[in-house]
Amino acid sequence: MGVQNSIASKQMSIKHELDTLFKPKSIAIIGASSKELSIGNVITKNLIHFNYTGKIYPINPKEPEIRGIKAYPSIFDVPDEIDLAHVIIPSKFVPQIIEDCGKKGIKSVIINSAGFSEMGDEGVALQNAFLENAKKYGVRIFGPNCQGIINCDPDYNAYCDFTFTFPKPGTISIVALSGGVGAFIMQSLFDLDIGMRMYASNGNACDISISDVVEYYGQDTGTKAIILYTEGFHNPKEFLETAKIVAKKKPILAMKSGRTEAGAKAAASHTGSLAGVDISTELIFEKTGVLSFTNEEEMCQAAMAFSTQPIPKGNRVGIITNTGGPAVIATDELVSAGLEIPPLSEKAVNILKNTLLPEATIGNPIDVVATGGGAHFRSALDVLMDEENIDSVFINFVTAPFTDTDEVARNIVEVSKQKKKPIICNFMTNLSFERYQHTAKIMRDGGVPCYSFPTTAAKALGALYKYHKIQSREIGEAMVFDDVEKSTVFNILSNSEKDKFLSSENVFKILEAYKIAVANWAIADSYEKAEQISSKIGYPVVVKAESPEIVHKSDKGGVVINIKCKDELRTAIQNINKNFSGTNLKYLVQKFMPGGKELIIGVSAGSNAGHLIMFGMGGIYVEVLKDVVFKLSPVTQTEAQEMLSTIKSAKLLDGVRGQLGIDKKSVVEIIQRISQLVTDFPQIKEMDLNPVMAFSDKAVAVDARIKL
Amino acid sequence: MGVQNSIASKQMSIKHELDTLFKPKSIAIIGASSKELSIGNVITKNLIHFNYTGKIYPINPKEPEIRGIKAYPSIFDVPDEIDLAHVIIPSKFVPQIIEDCGKKGIKSVIINSAGFSEMGDEGVALQNAFLENAKKYGVRIFGPNCQGIINCDPDYNAYCDFTFTFPKPGTISIVALSGGVGAFIMQSLFDLDIGMRMYASNGNACDISISDVVEYYGQDTGTKAIILYTEGFHNPKEFLETAKIVAKKKPILAMKSGRTEAGAKAAASHTGSLAGVDISTELIFEKTGVLSFTNEEEMCQAAMAFSTQPIPKGNRVGIITNTGGPAVIATDELVSAGLEIPPLSEKAVNILKNTLLPEATIGNPIDVVATGGGAHFRSALDVLMDEENIDSVFINFVTAPFTDTDEVARNIVEVSKQKKKPIICNFMTNLSFERYQHTAKIMRDGGVPCYSFPTTAAKALGALYKYHKIQSREIGEAMVFDDVEKSTVFNILSNSEKDKFLSSENVFKILEAYKIAVANWAIADSYEKAEQISSKIGYPVVVKAESPEIVHKSDKGGVVINIKCKDELRTAIQNINKNFSGTNLKYLVQKFMPGGKELIIGVSAGSNAGHLIMFGMGGIYVEVLKDVVFKLSPVTQTEAQEMLSTIKSAKLLDGVRGQLGIDKKSVVEIIQRISQLVTDFPQIKEMDLNPVMAFSDKAVAVDARIKL
Repeated sequence: MGVQNSIASKQMSIKHELDTLFKPKSIAIIGASSKELSIGNVITKNLIHFNYTGKIYPINPKEPEIRGIKAYPSIFDVPDEIDLAHVIIPSKFVPQIIEDCGKKGIKSVIINSAGFSEMGDEGVALQNAFLENAKKYGVRIFGPNCQGIINCDPDYNAYCDFTFTFPKPGTISIVALSGGVGAFIMQSLFDLDIGMRMYASNGNACDISISDVVEYYGQDTGTKAIILYTEGFHNPKEFLETAKIVAKKKPILAMKSGRTEAGAKAAASHTGSLAGVDISTELIFEKTGVLSFTNEEEMCQAAMAFSTQPIPKGNRVGIITNTGGPAVIATDELVSAGLEIPPLSEKAVNILKNTLLPEATIGNPIDVVATGGGAHFRSALDVLMDEENIDSVFINFVTAPFTDTDEVARNIVEVSKQKKKPIICNFMTNLSFERYQHTAKIMRDGGVPCYSFPTTAAKALGALYKYHKIQSREIGEAMVFDDVEKSTVFNILSNSEKDKFLSSENVFKILEAYKIAVANWAIADSYEKAEQISSKIGYPVVVKAESPEIVHKSDKGGVVINIKCKDELRTAIQNINKNFSGTNLKYLVQKFMPGGKELIIGVSAGSNAGHLIMFGMGGIYVEVLKDVVFKLSPVTQTEAQEMLSTIKSAKLLDGVRGQLGIDKKSVVEIIQRISQLVTDFPQIKEMDLNPVMAFSDKAVAVDARIKL
Repeated sequence: MGVQNSIASKQMSIKHELDTLFKPKSIAIIGASSKELSIGNVITKNLIHFNYTGKIYPINPKEPEIRGIKAYPSIFDVPDEIDLAHVIIPSKFVPQIIEDCGKKGIKSVIINSAGFSEMGDEGVALQNAFLENAKKYGVRIFGPNCQGIINCDPDYNAYCDFTFTFPKPGTISIVALSGGVGAFIMQSLFDLDIGMRMYASNGNACDISISDVVEYYGQDTGTKAIILYTEGFHNPKEFLETAKIVAKKKPILAMKSGRTEAGAKAAASHTGSLAGVDISTELIFEKTGVLSFTNEEEMCQAAMAFSTQPIPKGNRVGIITNTGGPAVIATDELVSAGLEIPPLSEKAVNILKNTLLPEATIGNPIDVVATGGGAHFRSALDVLMDEENIDSVFINFVTAPFTDTDEVARNIVEVSKQKKKPIICNFMTNLSFERYQHTAKIMRDGGVPCYSFPTTAAKALGALYKYHKIQSREIGEAMVFDDVEKSTVFNILSNSEKDKFLSSENVFKILEAYKIAVANWAIADSYEKAEQISSKIGYPVVVKAESPEIVHKSDKGGVVINIKCKDELRTAIQNINKNFSGTNLKYLVQKFMPGGKELIIGVSAGSNAGHLIMFGMGGIYVEVLKDVVFKLSPVTQTEAQEMLSTIKSAKLLDGVRGQLGIDKKSVVEIIQRISQLVTDFPQIKEMDLNPVMAFSDKAVAVDARIKL
């Protein structure tokens, strides 16, 4: 239903609806069982174990009690109101039970049972049946074929899930399509001892979507950052709209798997629905400012930093180290992540000369040496907090046996608590010693994110910085050109067939209607007409065979370029006539424009979130080097500019080896106008301008194709 | 000394020498102290704590005993022979103490003290002084400014180090330039519970080098794999020679930091010696078959797989999973690492249809589902062990609460112990439960490498596979062309100045002496002579101003291309005369060869391990796209072929868009001949052939430079 509702109305209503899911005051477990290790038993056990603050109503027609809690034969026997029900019964009984839930006034249901859309037609029918009943009564469905939710807020302690990790309260909320991945992400936060706020794994997601959950987390003040795992979105546009709002308020760390063909196949085999490598999701992440990861361990490690540290205001890192090598490794990784290690100010150097040990190296990194103690770390920290040209601090802290490591930790924590600048620590120790466990506890309790490897720590700081960059980036809104002639395009498209390429004539007319410059052209039906046109637009010209029957015309001798005079034109047309005798032939005569840079601008219909717009240099750059960049329509001016600046061969657009650069402004405008065209006419499935010839003063489409 | 000795002689002698370091029967601690946390105290404590099997002799002029062990005022007072001495006294006393050690017959000394080459001139002088004394008596020096060594072999239990990690015996040996990095790598192996064999961190490495240690580990039968960390090599050639031998016998997992400019700067600031981003080290790794990492955590995780699993015979993985999402993530990473997930044979499918649960997905991945137990895992494992087209097995094993997870673990271990194919496990569990600790222990004791994330596990399997690829790659020996005229080159170079470019005439003569095709050329001192030459080699020609005084000749109008006739030649020479009037001018007349593919072959003097040979396509490919590849001389035929096939635009060499491909064989031969040239004449500091024009039937150098 997240699908159908408009975003605006959902923002009003969802708070209410999902509150019964995430903050239930009472929970019925339909299918609770006294059988050890059964899901109904495990969920009951988990609720008790996690000290759920509401009421638990096990529902079982035969058992008087489950795990010491009074059970009821049916929900109708429960004397109180029920906020949330778990359904753990065979799929065929589910439609009826949802009807019952509706009648009982239950607002949220987690269907743990499997046997629905993931199991073929019969399952789909069952799913549709219970959804209809749910709609009738306004019941929101979570699942089916899912784990459930967890809310660690001590006001609820709602562990509505059969997993086995019991996190402490924290500020990170997790949403995962796959329960298996959600569970190990939760476990990872647990192992990192950083706590969790809420958790949701919604399996088939037939009603409450990942987007619904993200929106809920977005408005939850206790959630500081969101971790999201998915293999795709059922409704990408819904997620796009949600993420646009939520990612502005708090970091969304996301991973979308199935990024390889084999991975996508594996995903399809277990979800039965989402298949194929889609690049749309990554583009949605980029457009909305979601921090995308391809490595789940890095994502979890980054979450630790996001849960405790402020976001840096820039890319300049100060490094404090008490051992040399790890600083080198950290520097490599930091620099690779776009961070800088600027030199210290004279003032800072002078302070440190007086406060550090004589063996210390005063620079950036600041090496306080292994014998450096709390005071030395403190001085270095204070200096970096005051340095104007430092935005974040990276610490290598090895618990050298010769120092009071607790004292070092306490000083780091004190400065960290000022929350002036983010502090990330590569903490190298041996936790089998009580002494170092103690030091570690000081660091942890003090909220300093500690890592076991310099690269891992540096990657976490890199993620914080990347979020800063994302947050600082304003792509703006897509421009709307009001000089376009929509009706012309509408008329042409209305008369065009699906799945076929439009004629060049129609394509050029569409481009002209959207004020996209096309090399001068006209259609001739005879040599004489072609000659007139050529004289008018001026030699040299190109002649192309034009007929709906002709595809791959250049392969078959249907294109003659660089025609310099009448005679050449006559020969060209004679040859074309010979090559395509018997077809209903016309001639497209066009100005020949050599010497520009060949560009390609392409479009393909993506998900409902928008068309994929592609830009690259033509010829070998696209064919051999695959040097292209994609954005999701509607493309803003900033995004179009980014497309030009982020292809690998971007420098070529500026002109090298004495060539002039191209007129980027014109190309940026063409991209925006194409984006507007396919936004206005989403029925355009495929389109490319190949090539666009770009010169120092203009950019002109020379050939183009459109398919509905 | 590792520097001076030849490799052959070292192979004979080193076994003996380093045995006193790694397998000491008695250890003196010169500078042992009863002061808690002092290095001399910590080392004594560590030796005791680690149950060192030999004799400990604390040396201290004032104390009668240290940590309960009788101390001696001087080594001369020790009644027995001493194999190894730690030196932990102020640097100024070290030369004398080394002399004493020599007199006492001590063969190996670990100098923990700092204050030598890392501290400027005075330190260098002290280092030279003790080295001289060491040489006099044949004492081998480890350090100075270092941690020391550890040997976990229970016959020795030699913990000659002040670090705080006490590993159990294992099969991985570590050598690290940086003690800080060495220590956390050791700690990581400890945390992964995989044990360690030997450890060495040699600081300034003034005598015993990383290469010496690698060679020692290479011949140590207890070492199954080597982990190496460095920021560069003092003597790259020595390492090259050592690694060539050792990497053939056992995996060397290596990381070289300082790969960014900032990182290299950080490295220089703490080692005082090795500066600048060097790519030589990576090329040495590649040439010798060392597995290179840029992420130390991945390196340690991979070590766990190397320490327990056989090397796969190919890239085909069978995946067993009991949860969907993690299999998708794993598949993505495996495929990215070059592995394949082939479909199962019909036979396998038929077996699994009868043995797995009805909900299971039979394919690759095999999803035994969360309720799958030991028998289901076992059947899947047995099937994959028998599958001919499967080389390794990846398992996702979540300890689902509804299954007997111990039983699953036991079955995995039983199959793993057959050592038929490597098994890697992403083991998702919560170790705060005793139940799962038990399962984990079964896995660990059974030698199954377990990881906490699918990507991490997949990367480890990727590393095993990469090692298989490296081992299967035979680069062969560099060809020696015996048709070259060394004496011609010798004569030219003997008469050439250092740091200056040779004249084109000399460069071409050198190329011709090495039978590298050059576009026909000759030198003329007048128009008339130029005209004769042009007639002989045939128009079109190029004329270049030739004079030792002229640099950047093409910028100043000293090059005229595509001269088609006498008249054009006359004009060209008149213009050149005008542009360079007053200089001692000659004219290089050369056949003009348009229409080929521009290539560039470059050389720069690298470390003592060899010249860096570069190959790429010329023009924008090298200037803008930086699409070049490097190898270390001498380049073998296989390596030269790899150069052509591994540039990003490699496909262009095959010809695209109707063009002919180039004559690769000729280019490969030019690379080899250039390699031979600079190997024969290492005084060549810089050289490039730019461009080499490559056609479908030949490749010809058109312009070239050489500098000594």
